[in-house]
Amino acid sequence: MTPSDQPTTPPLNPLLAAVAPPPIADAQGWVRGLAPVPGRPLIDLCQAVPGHPPAAELVEHLAARLHDPAVHKYTDILGMPALREALAADIGRVYGARPSPSHVAITAGCNQAFCAAMMALAKAGDEVILPLPHYFNHKMWLDALGIHAVPLPFRPEAGGVPDVDEAADRIGPRTRAIVLVTPNNPTGAVYPPEVIAAFYALAQKHGIALVLDETYRDFLPEDRRPHALFDDPAWPETLVHLYSFSKVFAITGHRVGALVAGPRLMASVEKAVDCVAICAPRLGQEAALFGLTSLRDWVAGNTLLMRSRAAAFRQAVEGLQGWRLVSIGAYFAYVEHPFEGRAAYDVARSLAQEQSLLTLPGSMFGEGQDRFLRLAFANVPGEAAATVAARLAAFAER
Amino acid sequence: MTPSDQPTTPPLNPLLAAVAPPPIADAQGWVRGLAPVPGRPLIDLCQAVPGHPPAAELVEHLAARLHDPAVHKYTDILGMPALREALAADIGRVYGARPSPSHVAITAGCNQAFCAAMMALAKAGDEVILPLPHYFNHKMWLDALGIHAVPLPFRPEAGGVPDVDEAADRIGPRTRAIVLVTPNNPTGAVYPPEVIAAFYALAQKHGIALVLDETYRDFLPEDRRPHALFDDPAWPETLVHLYSFSKVFAITGHRVGALVAGPRLMASVEKAVDCVAICAPRLGQEAALFGLTSLRDWVAGNTLLMRSRAAAFRQAVEGLQGWRLVSIGAYFAYVEHPFEGRAAYDVARSLAQEQSLLTLPGSMFGEGQDRFLRLAFANVPGEAAATVAARLAAFAER
Ligand SMILES: Cc1ncc(COP(=O)(O)O)c(C=O)c1O
Ligand SMILES: Cc1ncc(COP(=O)(O)O)c(C=O)c1O
Repeated sequence: MTPSDQPTTPPLNPLLAAVAPPPIADAQGWVRGLAPVPGRPLIDLCQAVPGHPPAAELVEHLAARLHDPAVHKYTDILGMPALREALAADIGRVYGARPSPSHVAITAGCNQAFCAAMMALAKAGDEVILPLPHYFNHKMWLDALGIHAVPLPFRPEAGGVPDVDEAADRIGPRTRAIVLVTPNNPTGAVYPPEVIAAFYALAQKHGIALVLDETYRDFLPEDRRPHALFDDPAWPETLVHLYSFSKVFAITGHRVGALVAGPRLMASVEKAVDCVAICAPRLGQEAALFGLTSLRDWVAGNTLLMRSRAAAFRQAVEGLQGWRLVSIGAYFAYVEHPFEGRAAYDVARSLAQEQSLLTLPGSMFGEGQDRFLRLAFANVPGEAAATVAARLAAFAER
Repeated sequence: MTPSDQPTTPPLNPLLAAVAPPPIADAQGWVRGLAPVPGRPLIDLCQAVPGHPPAAELVEHLAARLHDPAVHKYTDILGMPALREALAADIGRVYGARPSPSHVAITAGCNQAFCAAMMALAKAGDEVILPLPHYFNHKMWLDALGIHAVPLPFRPEAGGVPDVDEAADRIGPRTRAIVLVTPNNPTGAVYPPEVIAAFYALAQKHGIALVLDETYRDFLPEDRRPHALFDDPAWPETLVHLYSFSKVFAITGHRVGALVAGPRLMASVEKAVDCVAICAPRLGQEAALFGLTSLRDWVAGNTLLMRSRAAAFRQAVEGLQGWRLVSIGAYFAYVEHPFEGRAAYDVARSLAQEQSLLTLPGSMFGEGQDRFLRLAFANVPGEAAATVAARLAAFAER
């Protein structure tokens, strides 16, 4: 090293440096510091958060639990045994077949569950099939690890449900997993059980994993089981189920989610979680446990609320000149904007700055999405749907 | 693919599959289900946790904060602005020079800060210099990412303080960082400021990062600043400082730590934290903020308590036949066991099962550590030191 080289700044990992910046923070930046328009307060449809607080009983319960010294300590890496047990039971209730508590890992949010699953399954140079549009953090994490995300084409004409034959065509020797998000973020699409079963069969046939992110499974448009995969006694060899307590109990800030998988994968997941988390936050685990055991009715009420909100948004957006509703379901609507040839990023930013309506551009969810915007409507009351529609209409007319 | 290949089970990422299993869980397994020996309750010196609960005021504060709906929501990815500000100020108090709040990232524990730092700095095939013995999660994470941990020799004769010239010899074109833990886990060694400064100069000269994990900086044997690196206006180009709120405020279960670095690195760290955490748990952030702003005296009391505990353990262990105290400082003692040629794992397991004394074998902290055991004494009162010594003595005599 010659003196003229010195001092230099550390080189960064080029993989992570090249990852797209976090979308939500970027979008929030569009309106930060803008003077509020009188009579037109910001409507924030950019982040998937419930607009309501957690149940009052849950808050009381946590306040009481704080006085147990144990709640301030690390738990087992994979979580409190009682919570692993309670989630296994809840899965039994919802899916009709019940995994063993040893199949359940509690993580500090569902994002972390995905991160651990991917590290356990694939390494740099491997491939993972990811339908378009994708949940941005999934793509970011794969990119960060140097795992190739192989896209599945977006099928707006099929309401955003991906095609299993197109996935079959893309499986090669380095494919390690297929990732599906259902109900979907960003489209809101609910994949039919038969479609999920077909993807499962495909994964099983090829000896790869099917990773199902079911963060929004409590907000299905109808009461029915999301799929029957847990019925297959061999599911632990193929299925990796991811879940979040964030939305169902309105506790996004508590950071608690879960991963359900077989013992081989779990041994790797445990190592990853030990490194990135040591354990999920104990109080979040307490909240999830209370929710699973004591808030069934409260959750049912919220499910109905979200359904009515989805209905209100559907009705308000469907009739709009220039805008087209591609899909709408739990939590999200995915709409086509009126401006052919104009970048979604530009459309979303203008909409935020001119109409005080914060949405995310489709381009944050992958290639070919420049005609679309995502509306995360769980955050606002159903009554706001008409105002949202009015702002979209006004924006289309400029 | 022929029918006889099917169905196969998904291959795992061989890097993570090959990572050593989580040590604490392994050690806890040695005594799980064992009948307690009458008159000889288990003394658990295996995990670095404070034995006392958090401050009563902190618990009250959290209980009150629970009624603010905001505490149940996601924060900014890098944490609450007030907490980033408060930690910057606290660093100013302890180190004599104050970083900007924008240099501070709040993470879900210090382990996560390390994970994010490493992902930001290095990729598979790169090298990171890691003194022996190392903190196991550091090694596990590097192994998981395929980053080569280049060991620095253990220097028991120097009380476990690594040698900067030996580090210089090991820097090559793929070296991305030097990692130091001071006060050290597992040895308890406190690195002198001059040694830290020499490592910093070395890193700066070579344009690599110096990653300093200072989880135990609140438990230094004397009141003095740990190092003067923040005095250098160019520190953001070289230094990555890691910190934990777990031990100082006795809130291990809340999962909150921090990373302090310059803006280039921070942009990558933000992406990693978004993926693995979205944000640190909000209530842990509230706890850390309260601690920094309101618990200075409480912390000072604990620092004194830990010092007296270290003194009690030093005195109890120093005179023991067959055992040798290699180093002792904040939180940990590192001792040489009496049995030459016997694996530390075997020694530690026997000690746990025969004497109800749970420690970790040196071998969990890297190669060449088979003569040593780590005693994490923060977990037990100073009065227990004599009992620990008696059990060690009895074990040596079998
Ligand atoms: C599909 C999907 N997966 C995972 C997550 C992360 O949820 P958590 O808060 O549990 O990390 C989200 C949150 O928006 C999501 O939409
Ligand atoms: C050196 C070191 N770094 C990091 C950590 C992790 O601490 P946290 O609880 O903040 O993740 C520990 C905990 O034992 C530690 O000893």
